[in-house]
Amino acid sequence: MEPDYSPSSLTIDLGPRSYRMHVRSLEGAPGLMREAGLDAERCFVVTDENVASLYLDRLMEALRAARFTPEAHVVAPGEQSKSEAPLRRLYDAALEWGLDRQTPVAALGGGVVGDLAGFAAATLLRGLPLVHLPTSLVAQVDSSLGGKTGINHATGKNLIGAFHQPVLVAADPEVLETLPQREWTSGLAEVVKHALIADANLLAFLREHWAAILNREAGPLPEMIHRAARVKAEVVAEDERERGRRAILNFGHTFGHAIEHAAGYGSFTHGEAVAVGMRAALFLSRERHPDFGGDAALDLVTRLPVRGGDPARLSFEALRRAMQQDKKNEGDAVRFVLLRAAGEAHVAGGFDDDTLEAAWQFALRSGD
Amino acid sequence: MEPDYSPSSLTIDLGPRSYRMHVRSLEGAPGLMREAGLDAERCFVVTDENVASLYLDRLMEALRAARFTPEAHVVAPGEQSKSEAPLRRLYDAALEWGLDRQTPVAALGGGVVGDLAGFAAATLLRGLPLVHLPTSLVAQVDSSLGGKTGINHATGKNLIGAFHQPVLVAADPEVLETLPQREWTSGLAEVVKHALIADANLLAFLREHWAAILNREAGPLPEMIHRAARVKAEVVAEDERERGRRAILNFGHTFGHAIEHAAGYGSFTHGEAVAVGMRAALFLSRERHPDFGGDAALDLVTRLPVRGGDPARLSFEALRRAMQQDKKNEGDAVRFVLLRAAGEAHVAGGFDDDTLEAAWQFALRSGD
Repeated sequence: MEPDYSPSSLTIDLGPRSYRMHVRSLEGAPGLMREAGLDAERCFVVTDENVASLYLDRLMEALRAARFTPEAHVVAPGEQSKSEAPLRRLYDAALEWGLDRQTPVAALGGGVVGDLAGFAAATLLRGLPLVHLPTSLVAQVDSSLGGKTGINHATGKNLIGAFHQPVLVAADPEVLETLPQREWTSGLAEVVKHALIADANLLAFLREHWAAILNREAGPLPEMIHRAARVKAEVVAEDERERGRRAILNFGHTFGHAIEHAAGYGSFTHGEAVAVGMRAALFLSRERHPDFGGDAALDLVTRLPVRGGDPARLSFEALRRAMQQDKKNEGDAVRFVLLRAAGEAHVAGGFDDDTLEAAWQFALRSGD
Repeated sequence: MEPDYSPSSLTIDLGPRSYRMHVRSLEGAPGLMREAGLDAERCFVVTDENVASLYLDRLMEALRAARFTPEAHVVAPGEQSKSEAPLRRLYDAALEWGLDRQTPVAALGGGVVGDLAGFAAATLLRGLPLVHLPTSLVAQVDSSLGGKTGINHATGKNLIGAFHQPVLVAADPEVLETLPQREWTSGLAEVVKHALIADANLLAFLREHWAAILNREAGPLPEMIHRAARVKAEVVAEDERERGRRAILNFGHTFGHAIEHAAGYGSFTHGEAVAVGMRAALFLSRERHPDFGGDAALDLVTRLPVRGGDPARLSFEALRRAMQQDKKNEGDAVRFVLLRAAGEAHVAGGFDDDTLEAAWQFALRSGD
């Protein structure tokens, strides 16, 4: 019998920049902000139109109940808000409204809102306290943790940004009910990734509850979010500025980024591309580590839905060229995150083109 | 007889973000960059048109001799380059040229270039190594040390920025020869300020060599720069993020900022306004600490040239209103940095308007 599990919070241990991540209702967030030491009178909330229509009123009311005077800044939904003009409009709105160095910026939304609001918090008055209130699964278990913020530039994604750790993350599992289904399953790809690279128990939990999880049944979600977030928290605590260990979070991403690039951004979601990429990475892991069975891992990865089209229309040659550009590379060797066992990841290279093509054919064959 | 003094370098002690500040010729900077561990192939240099015409070729040649492939980005001189459009042009130029996370940004110039290039380094690829090669006296002893970077916004100065410590500062005293005279004397105001708040020996050194220093004779400059920079380094090491002690660097700045504001920016230089402000702050220091004679301090402060016009045309009432806006205030009380002795500063408030007006009248009377 599963023990009575009440996940509530965990610590992201970064010395003087440590903070707590809570799995808690949105209404509870302003109280957690006060407990975290935010004693400002004002609070600047950033969200997007979709999230605003669903959850902004609830947050604003809860902020007022906690004696904040909140102001909301609503951006357009989607990746185009992670760019220079929306950032400038955010700066203008925040500075004309009025801030001091204690004013928190609260990011209510998914990864785009978190990255944009986080970068604004990093750069207004040389750094304001940042609160993440993630409303997508990817944001709850991944992007709200670790301090990466930024916007895109014409020459590439996330090229203008900063590391700026939040003072608090509060994730409400109930808001995930309103996520579009493809955003849900894309988030699950990151959850599976966290299980594979660092938590064999989470892998078992996911397999046991997979049908309920795919259906977003409330039961297993708090525990899933808490465990998946803990993996990210532990990796970040070991390598805050992405100089080493943090690279294992890119499991499935070498092929994944190449798939996104070759298919054109917006065809496959990031999570879908990573799901296919993880199949290829599991093939390479078994090539390198013959003792690693990986059947349970592969079973779960192949059950991640991929709705962006048929990956088989992408040529291996196009993927190979895209992988050559991957930023993990040192010199000319393409680098991959590999598993030596479920929950044990490392970075390696040294695969010839024939092996990489075999990995790609395996990834295509092993889809559902 | 003065001992044989060969100031060469000092450490800004910030734990994992510690770095060295060298008083050394510009030609030596690229070698110091290599010694500091910068092993990149490329280097992105930011400077302004005035400095470029004098020193850019020398720096580029020295960078090539140290096996860097340098690229220079030249901005217009003056405060208007600390704004959003020049920052965007800098981003475009740097990203189109090509950067990786190891590429250093070298700021060759005064405070404006340092703040702009520093903020770009803080925000490109979530943080690039920053090298300050300060060419103004204020930059050499003050603004290149401590990690403040940023640009201005329509609603105020330095409102968009970040703390981003350099990996190296290299200051060449010889480049100060070409500074306009008012920039020189304005820089001396900051040197005097550093002596007054934290180094009575520097105060004695300045008084002994004052005529030579005003004339920019080479003899005392390396020692003066080294000692004044050390004061900044020590204050920053105690309070990297300006949460307490760093406030003493604002000696003379409560009245000083009010003078700049009331006179309109560009009338008095910042250093001239601070020079007058330090006279008022010395008056208040003696009011609060009757045992503090302060004659040596006052003697030096009153010998700082003020060329921006007659401060007497500013009304006390205008200054009082401007001081109410000062960001050091807590609630309604105007706060000042005071000296309890030469080299010992603290922050205090609690002066009534009559005392503040008396301080202003004293500041006007005590000019040269």
